[in-house]
Amino acid sequence: MTDRPTLDDQALDILFREARTQNKWQDRQVPDSKLEEVYNLLKFAPTSANASPARFVFIRTSEGKARLKPALSAGNMEKTMTAPVIAIVAHDMAFYDKLPFLFPHADARSWFASTPALAETTAFRNGTLQGAYLILAARAAGLDAGPMSGFDNAKVDEAFFAGTTWKSNFLVNLGYGDPEGLFPRSPRLSFDEAARLE
Amino acid sequence: MTDRPTLDDQALDILFREARTQNKWQDRQVPDSKLEEVYNLLKFAPTSANASPARFVFIRTSEGKARLKPALSAGNMEKTMTAPVIAIVAHDMAFYDKLPFLFPHADARSWFASTPALAETTAFRNGTLQGAYLILAARAAGLDAGPMSGFDNAKVDEAFFAGTTWKSNFLVNLGYGDPEGLFPRSPRLSFDEAARLE
Repeated sequence: MTDRPTLDDQALDILFREARTQNKWQDRQVPDSKLEEVYNLLKFAPTSANASPARFVFIRTSEGKARLKPALSAGNMEKTMTAPVIAIVAHDMAFYDKLPFLFPHADARSWFASTPALAETTAFRNGTLQGAYLILAARAAGLDAGPMSGFDNAKVDEAFFAGTTWKSNFLVNLGYGDPEGLFPRSPRLSFDEAARLE
Repeated sequence: MTDRPTLDDQALDILFREARTQNKWQDRQVPDSKLEEVYNLLKFAPTSANASPARFVFIRTSEGKARLKPALSAGNMEKTMTAPVIAIVAHDMAFYDKLPFLFPHADARSWFASTPALAETTAFRNGTLQGAYLILAARAAGLDAGPMSGFDNAKVDEAFFAGTTWKSNFLVNLGYGDPEGLFPRSPRLSFDEAARLE
């Protein structure tokens, strides 16, 4: 019943109140060790039956960007091609094969392996949760993170995941933004518009 | 090109490394003002075209819990019925009707209103992102937050959203956990298992 620690104002600004999806980037690279640091935070956040279906491809090279480029929508092209890193947030449709390791105290694999519709919804929902954890973990670690779904998923799957059980979900640009490229923040729904108390 | 602020170790522990999905709860209520505080953090985190499709029902009363109860799976029953608050994370299938307000600089409503499959995927994906933001915003504000998808969505929709365009996605128990009810943390995938560099 002791008082619980909470995040201070600076931390809340970094995660939520002042963070923005960036359109321009500083000329500053993101070391691979930073991507590993971000993963080692997000991996702890919760998923259904600890299934952890998200898979991440971190594109840093010009070869990787060239493979991604034909899948991007025009409006997302420049900010994405100039980002130091683009994360493909994907999920493994056969995620349940890891459940004997991830959820050892029950036969959780069997809950999904024989019910494709449940497996698909679980992969998409929980892979998306983990994509959100990626965004906030990146911000916590000092990066800017901007998600996008304006691209052709089938093209990304063909370019990066052919012959595998991984499917793309959305993209997240990662780097150090240049606030020169920002527009004013758009409005949000009020509590009363988006929530109700019962 | 200045150094960027990052979250300190205590904040990272609160959000990711030490946070757990709780099974037992302290006898301590969550004031409605705390739920509003959590919403006023999560609302800033990004969604596609700022569409903000998530809708939240915060159940605190025994009447509300009684309406939820028949939809819960047996394994989630006790920890949910004893939680001070249960959030239904839902999304509005007609979220695009708010886009003239939320995304005023383009006719974004038309991108979704005439393409039901895109609207449905956008509502589910972005509503799920906002559910993840809820979990981390609640933790940032000093609460424990545990998500669940082990329940009957159709029953929840009938009990809470009949005659509306809102659909349930998943549930999040909110309160102050009693660590007595915890099991040891399950393993996570390593960076090399879940990610690849390109």
